[in-house]
Amino acid sequence: MTITETIRCIQPLDLTAMDAARQRQSQLTKPAGSLGRLEELSIQLAGIQRKPFPSINNRVIVIMAGDHGVAAEGVSAYPQEVTPQMVLNFLHGGAAINVLARHTGARVVVVDMGVAGEINSPINEAPLLHRRRVGLGTMNLAKGAAMSRQQAEETIQSGIEIALDEISKGADILGTGDMGIGNTTPSAAIAACILGRSPEDIVGHGTGVDEAGLIRKIHAVKRGLKVNKPSLEDGVDILAKVGGFEIGGLAGVMLGAASKHVPVMVDGFISTAAAMIAVMVAPQCRPYLISAHRSKEKGHTLMLEWLGLKPLLDLDLRLGEGTGAVLGISLAEAACKILNEMATFDEAGISGKE
Amino acid sequence: MTITETIRCIQPLDLTAMDAARQRQSQLTKPAGSLGRLEELSIQLAGIQRKPFPSINNRVIVIMAGDHGVAAEGVSAYPQEVTPQMVLNFLHGGAAINVLARHTGARVVVVDMGVAGEINSPINEAPLLHRRRVGLGTMNLAKGAAMSRQQAEETIQSGIEIALDEISKGADILGTGDMGIGNTTPSAAIAACILGRSPEDIVGHGTGVDEAGLIRKIHAVKRGLKVNKPSLEDGVDILAKVGGFEIGGLAGVMLGAASKHVPVMVDGFISTAAAMIAVMVAPQCRPYLISAHRSKEKGHTLMLEWLGLKPLLDLDLRLGEGTGAVLGISLAEAACKILNEMATFDEAGISGKE
Repeated sequence: MTITETIRCIQPLDLTAMDAARQRQSQLTKPAGSLGRLEELSIQLAGIQRKPFPSINNRVIVIMAGDHGVAAEGVSAYPQEVTPQMVLNFLHGGAAINVLARHTGARVVVVDMGVAGEINSPINEAPLLHRRRVGLGTMNLAKGAAMSRQQAEETIQSGIEIALDEISKGADILGTGDMGIGNTTPSAAIAACILGRSPEDIVGHGTGVDEAGLIRKIHAVKRGLKVNKPSLEDGVDILAKVGGFEIGGLAGVMLGAASKHVPVMVDGFISTAAAMIAVMVAPQCRPYLISAHRSKEKGHTLMLEWLGLKPLLDLDLRLGEGTGAVLGISLAEAACKILNEMATFDEAGISGKE
Repeated sequence: MTITETIRCIQPLDLTAMDAARQRQSQLTKPAGSLGRLEELSIQLAGIQRKPFPSINNRVIVIMAGDHGVAAEGVSAYPQEVTPQMVLNFLHGGAAINVLARHTGARVVVVDMGVAGEINSPINEAPLLHRRRVGLGTMNLAKGAAMSRQQAEETIQSGIEIALDEISKGADILGTGDMGIGNTTPSAAIAACILGRSPEDIVGHGTGVDEAGLIRKIHAVKRGLKVNKPSLEDGVDILAKVGGFEIGGLAGVMLGAASKHVPVMVDGFISTAAAMIAVMVAPQCRPYLISAHRSKEKGHTLMLEWLGLKPLLDLDLRLGEGTGAVLGISLAEAACKILNEMATFDEAGISGKE
């Protein structure tokens, strides 16, 4: 499906299913509302999956990886070669996301959206890696557009295709994850642009740059916005000028999932920037998004507020990879099970409120 | 073991194991500290279990049930008969805690600490129920002591024995849960007493009393503290005068677990009141406690601050039963697995910080 066709398929949530779930929650053996966010989440999931008893049985984390020309500005604490090294770590099962995915029963799908690997890089041979390379890393957004408009559309298109493919294989929830040295910089640029805020309010320490690195990041974002002047009405333009390949891919995953009535658990800072692009491109995808956690990265709270999303977890995570998303998926699964498995007051013969 | 002997066995956390875990966290393939609270938790668990690689394989939720004479003051939205009805629901697997325990692989242990059941109540026949009845519900704390000092000690002793029994059967983490119509009132009384705060700052809507009910609860707590004058130096006296059987039992579970180097995941409002009693009785048990979540019930945040505990989750839960605790245990398990299963930079051949 093209991007336009995909967007056209995104429907509002099913209010009838949501009413049925809300009604059921009030009959279960607990004071009404006493499971708080889990009850709200179960009702949202009923609306997304269009059934009164939503369920999550097949959990997939999509990790999109890409490199960033802006890394040349000294915006990261780690060298760019870490991107393909971590991609291999994901494929070998040694990264945090692998551990947490095993813990929660999720499958990890790794996509090379544009890693700056060399010709003979071992990731070129990795059998389990999905290859959607749009380029060998983006251009330096501080000096010009990160990518062409055509490349930006290609990233979104690839994300849609990956999502539809996983859904056709049975996934009933998708979590987003990212890997890309330097990618908090384009994410902050997207957020600063859309929120109309000063980069100082958004840019954080990422993987752990020092104060000098933080100033370099802020300057890179400022120059990027000044040089590129992204159109505030056009999510694809913002993505092309100051975004990243993996960010576009994740936005595409969100659009693809929403078009198929599949919820998306949005990870932290980078995934939330992707969510802002997705919502710019198709505001109707927003109800399909669930924020997994509040990142420790500066600016994330402002981004979540713009999206109108309240995060489930607040554990000071700032790793990415989908580590927050996979924990959020476990809570979504718990929310569904509450609805499906708890006894009602009638069934259990329990007296109601006086 | 007696209470005194149990307390004598509670050791400080193992700093050597904590240092080893901290060191390991810095070698794993992620920026140092980027897993936030999960890293801290893994280090605490290393100190508790006294090993550099802590693990959680056998999860048990102990639900203590009891009734409360103060229910006669109209402090709950539900009739007292709901306590034994819910005990049966736990035993039949239909309650929220059963659903969440199945989701996370925890075993539920239900203890009758003093339910006000009739002679022919079906809970008297329930084969899986642990029977530790100290009485048929407490006396009305608004009019006098809720129980005798001897009964208070008996509840703590029973909690210790239940904990030691589960630990001897293999439990390597215990979660606390409660059931007892009216039990937010004694919990608020304990907190108001220990914190030296006005009951208005602590008392909340519990299972959902209206404004008139809230005022009745506040008055009941005020009268209880005035009539009983609990000693501020004596946790057992506070428990006896304004507490509850299940609250004493949970305090005992905490002491018993701490004496055996087993972590305790503390649920919400009632469990936190029990934790305050446990810490009054034996301050050295505090490092063994983990707060699972911030309850929506008023006053809970003040109680957590007094304990120096920062909750893992903030999902507006206010159900009790251990529903927050079991979700917290799943995070504790994830924290251990991170430490045990992630690759190091060396193992994965990944470049370090520049």
